[in-house]
Amino acid sequence: MIEAKRVNEFSTISSSRLSDITGINPHQIRKDFSYFGEFGKRGIGYPVLELFNKLKEILKSNQKWNLVLAGAGNLGTAFLRYKGFSKRGFIIKAVFDNDMAKVGKKIGHIRIRHIQDMEKFLKEQKIRIGIITVPSQSAQEVADQMIAGGVRSILNFAPISIKHPRRISIKHIDIAIELEKLVYYLS
Amino acid sequence: MIEAKRVNEFSTISSSRLSDITGINPHQIRKDFSYFGEFGKRGIGYPVLELFNKLKEILKSNQKWNLVLAGAGNLGTAFLRYKGFSKRGFIIKAVFDNDMAKVGKKIGHIRIRHIQDMEKFLKEQKIRIGIITVPSQSAQEVADQMIAGGVRSILNFAPISIKHPRRISIKHIDIAIELEKLVYYLS
Repeated sequence: MIEAKRVNEFSTISSSRLSDITGINPHQIRKDFSYFGEFGKRGIGYPVLELFNKLKEILKSNQKWNLVLAGAGNLGTAFLRYKGFSKRGFIIKAVFDNDMAKVGKKIGHIRIRHIQDMEKFLKEQKIRIGIITVPSQSAQEVADQMIAGGVRSILNFAPISIKHPRRISIKHIDIAIELEKLVYYLS
Repeated sequence: MIEAKRVNEFSTISSSRLSDITGINPHQIRKDFSYFGEFGKRGIGYPVLELFNKLKEILKSNQKWNLVLAGAGNLGTAFLRYKGFSKRGFIIKAVFDNDMAKVGKKIGHIRIRHIQDMEKFLKEQKIRIGIITVPSQSAQEVADQMIAGGVRSILNFAPISIKHPRRISIKHIDIAIELEKLVYYLS
């Protein structure tokens, strides 16, 4: 993704320059952009500001998205402290945990709430996105509660496969599996 | 992945039962297994212990893998404290940072070392795997140092695309991008 501060440096940008920045091959870039319409000229490139705004619109990253996080452990805490989410429009509105020793405490400026209050909170705030950083054994239950509260997209870091209705999108990130994939290619 | 404790509960397991556990469709499971040879019988299923050991061998998860982590921030700390890695054979041997306020301190039982000592450590310990949890602006330099030290597989959490020789495998996990992909499908 092109950073905002870079946008004004050039008036047009070529697919080969975009390729240098992103590491994606220029043919793929041209093909992907053309899928969304004609917004560049052969030999001239893409008008930077137009491209930037068009991409934000396509990716819906010109919007703010509220989300909740379940699981105030090490990983959950890392996400709460990570400034990269809000820069990209993702606002963590609340964090939930079932550990009474954590409930009521603050991480940064966010107070940890009890997981039993999550469903009501989700409905009241009309939140559609949840991040799960609870242990495996609680992940299915927490996902069910999120879905009951109206969440439609879940990013799951617990190392289990969550059963869910087809209308719900769940992306599972299992870091140990990513490591396993990497070592598979080590001789 | 089937957990070890479950292995002895059944003597054989069908692809449809494996499908229930994993959420992967049974046809895909049979197809994937057959790619590695014949280790099941139609109508009977897979002998569980044989399957389990064969899969560990295929996935090289019957081995221990040493790795290093660069970046002792919130995310790095979460990984150091996460017990799921060692269960899967991944041992974080050292953590490196460039912040003198952190160097020498411990996270769990691992002492934070200075990033300038990383290349030498990697060579001495013959470590092939690295995890990058440093900020974007340092990630390329850190990756270059890992590669110079002999690392061949990198899991990168910094939100930039790292340039690298083709013989090096780099898996980029950008959690904000994963969220962007999820909201793309929200109406």
